[in-house]
Amino acid sequence: MSANATGTRVRTKKTTDPFTRLESEVRSYCRSFPVRWRAARNATLISDDGTEYIDFLAGCSSLNYGHNDPDMKAALIAYLNEDGIAHGLDMHTEAKAAFLQAFGDIVLKPRNMDYRLQFTGPTGANAVEAALKLARRVTGRTNVIAFTNGFHGVSTAALAVTANRYHRAASGAALNYVTRMPYDGYFGEDTDTAEQIRHILSDPSGGVDPPAAFILETVQGEGGLKTASAAWMRSIQALAKESGALMIVDDIQAGCGRTGTFFSFEKMGVEPDMILLAKSLSGMGLPLSMVLIKPEHDRWRPGEHNGSFRGNNHAFVTARVALQKFWSDSGAGLDLERKSQNLQSALENIGSRHGLTLRGRGMFQGIDLKTSEIAAAVSQKCFEQRLIIELSGAHDEILKVLAPLTTPGEQMERGLKIIAESVDEIFGKALYTASSNTD
Amino acid sequence: MSANATGTRVRTKKTTDPFTRLESEVRSYCRSFPVRWRAARNATLISDDGTEYIDFLAGCSSLNYGHNDPDMKAALIAYLNEDGIAHGLDMHTEAKAAFLQAFGDIVLKPRNMDYRLQFTGPTGANAVEAALKLARRVTGRTNVIAFTNGFHGVSTAALAVTANRYHRAASGAALNYVTRMPYDGYFGEDTDTAEQIRHILSDPSGGVDPPAAFILETVQGEGGLKTASAAWMRSIQALAKESGALMIVDDIQAGCGRTGTFFSFEKMGVEPDMILLAKSLSGMGLPLSMVLIKPEHDRWRPGEHNGSFRGNNHAFVTARVALQKFWSDSGAGLDLERKSQNLQSALENIGSRHGLTLRGRGMFQGIDLKTSEIAAAVSQKCFEQRLIIELSGAHDEILKVLAPLTTPGEQMERGLKIIAESVDEIFGKALYTASSNTD
Amino acid sequence: MSANATGTRVRTKKTTDPFTRLESEVRSYCRSFPVRWRAARNATLISDDGTEYIDFLAGCSSLNYGHNDPDMKAALIAYLNEDGIAHGLDMHTEAKAAFLQAFGDIVLKPRNMDYRLQFTGPTGANAVEAALKLARRVTGRTNVIAFTNGFHGVSTAALAVTANRYHRAASGAALNYVTRMPYDGYFGEDTDTAEQIRHILSDPSGGVDPPAAFILETVQGEGGLKTASAAWMRSIQALAKESGALMIVDDIQAGCGRTGTFFSFEKMGVEPDMILLAKSLSGMGLPLSMVLIKPEHDRWRPGEHNGSFRGNNHAFVTARVALQKFWSDSGAGLDLERKSQNLQSALENIGSRHGLTLRGRGMFQGIDLKTSEIAAAVSQKCFEQRLIIELSGAHDEILKVLAPLTTPGEQMERGLKIIAESVDEIFGKALYTASSNTD
Amino acid sequence: MSANATGTRVRTKKTTDPFTRLESEVRSYCRSFPVRWRAARNATLISDDGTEYIDFLAGCSSLNYGHNDPDMKAALIAYLNEDGIAHGLDMHTEAKAAFLQAFGDIVLKPRNMDYRLQFTGPTGANAVEAALKLARRVTGRTNVIAFTNGFHGVSTAALAVTANRYHRAASGAALNYVTRMPYDGYFGEDTDTAEQIRHILSDPSGGVDPPAAFILETVQGEGGLKTASAAWMRSIQALAKESGALMIVDDIQAGCGRTGTFFSFEKMGVEPDMILLAKSLSGMGLPLSMVLIKPEHDRWRPGEHNGSFRGNNHAFVTARVALQKFWSDSGAGLDLERKSQNLQSALENIGSRHGLTLRGRGMFQGIDLKTSEIAAAVSQKCFEQRLIIELSGAHDEILKVLAPLTTPGEQMERGLKIIAESVDEIFGKALYTASSNTD
Repeated sequence: MSANATGTRVRTKKTTDPFTRLESEVRSYCRSFPVRWRAARNATLISDDGTEYIDFLAGCSSLNYGHNDPDMKAALIAYLNEDGIAHGLDMHTEAKAAFLQAFGDIVLKPRNMDYRLQFTGPTGANAVEAALKLARRVTGRTNVIAFTNGFHGVSTAALAVTANRYHRAASGAALNYVTRMPYDGYFGEDTDTAEQIRHILSDPSGGVDPPAAFILETVQGEGGLKTASAAWMRSIQALAKESGALMIVDDIQAGCGRTGTFFSFEKMGVEPDMILLAKSLSGMGLPLSMVLIKPEHDRWRPGEHNGSFRGNNHAFVTARVALQKFWSDSGAGLDLERKSQNLQSALENIGSRHGLTLRGRGMFQGIDLKTSEIAAAVSQKCFEQRLIIELSGAHDEILKVLAPLTTPGEQMERGLKIIAESVDEIFGKALYTASSNTD
Repeated sequence: MSANATGTRVRTKKTTDPFTRLESEVRSYCRSFPVRWRAARNATLISDDGTEYIDFLAGCSSLNYGHNDPDMKAALIAYLNEDGIAHGLDMHTEAKAAFLQAFGDIVLKPRNMDYRLQFTGPTGANAVEAALKLARRVTGRTNVIAFTNGFHGVSTAALAVTANRYHRAASGAALNYVTRMPYDGYFGEDTDTAEQIRHILSDPSGGVDPPAAFILETVQGEGGLKTASAAWMRSIQALAKESGALMIVDDIQAGCGRTGTFFSFEKMGVEPDMILLAKSLSGMGLPLSMVLIKPEHDRWRPGEHNGSFRGNNHAFVTARVALQKFWSDSGAGLDLERKSQNLQSALENIGSRHGLTLRGRGMFQGIDLKTSEIAAAVSQKCFEQRLIIELSGAHDEILKVLAPLTTPGEQMERGLKIIAESVDEIFGKALYTASSNTD
Repeated sequence: MSANATGTRVRTKKTTDPFTRLESEVRSYCRSFPVRWRAARNATLISDDGTEYIDFLAGCSSLNYGHNDPDMKAALIAYLNEDGIAHGLDMHTEAKAAFLQAFGDIVLKPRNMDYRLQFTGPTGANAVEAALKLARRVTGRTNVIAFTNGFHGVSTAALAVTANRYHRAASGAALNYVTRMPYDGYFGEDTDTAEQIRHILSDPSGGVDPPAAFILETVQGEGGLKTASAAWMRSIQALAKESGALMIVDDIQAGCGRTGTFFSFEKMGVEPDMILLAKSLSGMGLPLSMVLIKPEHDRWRPGEHNGSFRGNNHAFVTARVALQKFWSDSGAGLDLERKSQNLQSALENIGSRHGLTLRGRGMFQGIDLKTSEIAAAVSQKCFEQRLIIELSGAHDEILKVLAPLTTPGEQMERGLKIIAESVDEIFGKALYTASSNTD
Repeated sequence: MSANATGTRVRTKKTTDPFTRLESEVRSYCRSFPVRWRAARNATLISDDGTEYIDFLAGCSSLNYGHNDPDMKAALIAYLNEDGIAHGLDMHTEAKAAFLQAFGDIVLKPRNMDYRLQFTGPTGANAVEAALKLARRVTGRTNVIAFTNGFHGVSTAALAVTANRYHRAASGAALNYVTRMPYDGYFGEDTDTAEQIRHILSDPSGGVDPPAAFILETVQGEGGLKTASAAWMRSIQALAKESGALMIVDDIQAGCGRTGTFFSFEKMGVEPDMILLAKSLSGMGLPLSMVLIKPEHDRWRPGEHNGSFRGNNHAFVTARVALQKFWSDSGAGLDLERKSQNLQSALENIGSRHGLTLRGRGMFQGIDLKTSEIAAAVSQKCFEQRLIIELSGAHDEILKVLAPLTTPGEQMERGLKIIAESVDEIFGKALYTASSNTD
């Protein structure tokens, strides 16, 4: 158990703790938050001894509508009671039909978007794998352009486009077929990285092979809440068109309302060739992922990309309810603009007291705490106050607020207060000075 | 059914069929079995108009205990009602603890097996990806030996070890780091392929780099129900040891009782370094996969292989019930030996009438129908008789019986009778003669 | 001339021209300069009908001391007459001993350089292949950083570090294990590309794997005579040290005096881990290449990198004479500083008349003619005036003067006059205006 | 210096020996034969102190016509005296024209062969690189089938098709895009490996991607003088045709008369799509290599595969003389059939005395000495008797006789006598018993 944990939390002797005894060393979040969870409702996590925690982790944005939304839960129980299909490979089921219909009516049609839906294996990484395959087929090219600080998953092709060195180093074999390029703002405000990319791609001796695709996030969730501007996104789209490549927006973490709109790029004037969704797509945290493909690129032959779990019908049920409940009104009921502003104000308050920079946008914001030591100390301090919150960024230096979009106002304030106090305390302790030269 | 749906459900009118309109061309099973399913119980699938079909597809062996097992269903509903954690990343939950405990007590301990459990993304392919990474790290090598007709999934590293040309051709970029070797019996009974592999690996000029791992199935589910003998499996294990490689048994399709025992290799005298499970692991078709790792190889650092859905708590709940219900007695209640013999007798009967060869073992058997045309005709004929059954093999020439292990005797007989009649009819029509030279 | 040739030598009659009839379409220079050459002396090429041309191509800098230097020729004839070893694999020969001794005494010792010499297959590309292998072994890493507009040869690993799209596209399979970075000045004077590289390499989420090596030229011969500053070279050296990578200077085209000193980086304050030489190394154009390796990196085991022609003894003979004749006085007799200034003045004159930019340094200079059309027209015009001169750059837009370092002053002036007149004529014809928007 | 060498051979103090002081550890043959060579004539090598050795190494078959053939030497001296072009890139020269003409008239025409000639960089490896690129372009595929014990060079693509582990291990990065297959006889006489390859290639689930090419030797020079039968070669040719792949015969070591005919496959009834020549092509050991391409596959664009030394004019001069002198009569003057029979009789004599197996064919034969220890001892014993002879095979267990084809009869006998006595002595010393279990 964690050195941070007080002895009271050790419920069982080590030999009888099934996690320590049986689970691989690869386990991670359970090390930061050494609690055994019993239940959860919306933004509240409840431990085995009944203690309540505020959940600002939200399954890394897989729980944008909180835990166990009552409507989704009810629909799923009803579905179970009626012996609805749980597993149907990619056969037609009523649950899938209903989801397709809802996605078409609620998401695509109002946005004038024309896409085909591919259900890959239910992880985001699998959606990435499928999208890269398809882009390579469509273009007949192999090279894919990915960005600094991008994170797209850890299966081989997804890992190849992922920037994080810790994860890449675990690949066991060199990761190929990808060119890394600087994200928006990577070299500071004065450098237009899209212009640099254009320069090198249009140079016959630039040394970068013509790309099959650009894959990118609009807000880099794992990469430290770095954001792309609308102008830069449009430049990348233009570049993709010029160079005969597809533009793939990985909206796995930033999508499903996290930035304030259903898709993260809605107001940016771009029209990606493919869009990847997963995480909060199912609404209550069930595995489900999806590739949205412009019809002209839907060059798949039947079953070429397959998998046992490429249709998770339970997830279709809850995903449909999520769309109907939260997006029939274009998300108005979620009131995300106001919530985002409140979040930003609160974080600005904290930031201004200590000279800290804010990151991200919408309900996808955080504070740059400058070093991983400080950030870890703040997160630990929050945890002691029963707030679960995680870190992000190349150095795990960003405190990332991933509160459910449905977090009640009072609980949100309570959580933000815990963050404020924790940051104040840590900076009061002058930890910053001590470890400011960590780089 | 969707709140949006009006009940008209005109499947054939293109404009209102959400599948045709919205789903990618990649969809496949739904093309062979163009029915919209509403519900399912054990081995019975029920269409939207109430028609019942026998399900000898069983989610490609993801539904070894049938659809919607009442005990699993009840446990899941109870869990939902108590607001049990649905999504918890890899944090400790009570559902996970209970599963770990059950797996240790019911599966590992009675078999004197000592393994660590890694929960990867919930697909089999993800388990393959994780295992290959780990084998490469443990050995410091990249080359992996995979086998003719092997099938391990379609994400990049999994696809690289998969043999099927159709799926490989969809990769979009060359698949590397893998050496293909002949499976047991690949060159006929007289050729000991393990001896050939030893020959080439022990030859410093054999041209095959020292391997990190051998990855293989004991019965090749997608590859046409080819089986490995115990002796050959032991030879491969010996070869792995001699060459400093790990032996990875992919038991994703053959495991969880399909061959008659929980693991497919139980009576073979081998002790794999890693074992992969998925498909029927969750018991009722929910996405869940797992890598079993010998403790000495558990060289992961925290979070190196991660993913949003690496702990599917709903699946932990049902998986635990599956273990408790079906395996506490070592599977005795499933009575698989008798069922397997019945299946074999029935298939032998069919085979002997038409000079057809049987494939597979246990509840994992099929008939070689010689050509894809015949096989497709038989499958179609079965479908007309309301039996869902799929094909397998390099040429889709094997009719593969994947009945739930829990299929009631009477229904099993009915299904087998449909198969027998369909084969008889097709061969009566002398289709075989007509298309025997298709190759 | 061949004993078989009858003297008719009708170049244009297809049936009797052996080149058209028998040589692959891959031939190239012979297309730009369709002359059959009989003999050559210093900077003069003589055609089969006795016409003399000035050679400002010089075997792409393989003939820095001109054609058939009388002393080298005499030494080689003497060696032949004494039945000196022509081919000895990598055995000890007197010719090799004498070359080693001369290289140690004349090149290494006066410069306080401590390197081991590896004779690879006699092409520059083979030296590149060997150096990359060794860097990967020494560091245990695979990623190699190469630069925009870099050119290092066309065998697979050399091609992977080469930037030119035309050559890369001929690879037939994706080129891996390399990260492309911007060369000095690539994004204009205001952007410090070394600083950008440092930024991305020191970012744990920069997405660039720790490199085994940086491979670069100080002047990019094929890339359009782009030059690296001493400060930038030192930054790259520092970066290599910081990141645990080796610095490999490819001095194949820029070395052997071309820039004014024996090595192109002599005055830059850098000490490469490996240095590659080929082209003019043998002195009279015989195939010979070499990797200079800092002793601490000489981790080769015997024969690991081998090849039938890894010791070209004829080339050792002429290479030794070249060192003794031209470098015993540190190159003073070549008077390169004065010659370079003259060259520069002449080119500046031309450039200033037409607003054209100069490229390169030392005897490695050229003029940017802005488009490939203009450049081709100028080159063709020069050829009509019996001057052989080639193009370089991403768009073949740079007229590259590669006169032998030994070109007599009068001939040099004559050649430069032809260039001047050709440029004047082409620009007089306003070709520039017409095709300035070619990009 | 070698542990085997007596102190008398150490001519110079270590500090003044330029080889030890300055040459990379990669040097190899000079370790086995620690003599400094001064001169050589035909099959005789002369050391710096005038001692004569018989050369049965012959530059690893780069000196099939012996050292310093007087006619080639005279032609080269004449060429030098006339200031013939030494280095002309790929421009037309009289020396090249004459070679092309001679190759067409003497080699191609009498054999009814229609090929285009590509002069790559002058090493065999470079010819391999070029051929693989072209095969990949022509077929649009990447996978290349190469064989156990094959050796094709050490640049990256050549190394990928090479089987030797020692050389592969020096690559520093995984070698990709190649499938290894068993050579003729690899699994013993009873196994038709071509049939196995056909089986796996024609199996859509065999797991081997459709190949761009088969690359193979007819006699595996480095691989231990294993030979392919004509029937097997025809099977491979048929397989290549069936699978849409090109057949590339690497005749670099086996060509130029070594097996008794100019090409090693002349009597086999095959017509390769590409043929690779190097080593003895130039006749006197000068670097020269060539790809022969069937006209319909000559899909190169100008300069796509280039290199500074892709036309070695000195080598064109000597290569032309070699063709005219030795092959105008189809090799009759070389009397290779008789010489080969004599060689075989002598080796059979030795072999029969000690139960040793012969390998190879023509003037490309050797004895399997069973272990590297015995083979090294025999080679060392020969060296003490002033015979230079090398080893080959996966374990360096084959004593390989590579006498010049022009070795005078008396000298040939003397060399074979030394071999016989050395083998007798070593086996008399019962070394075989002592180390027979080395494997």
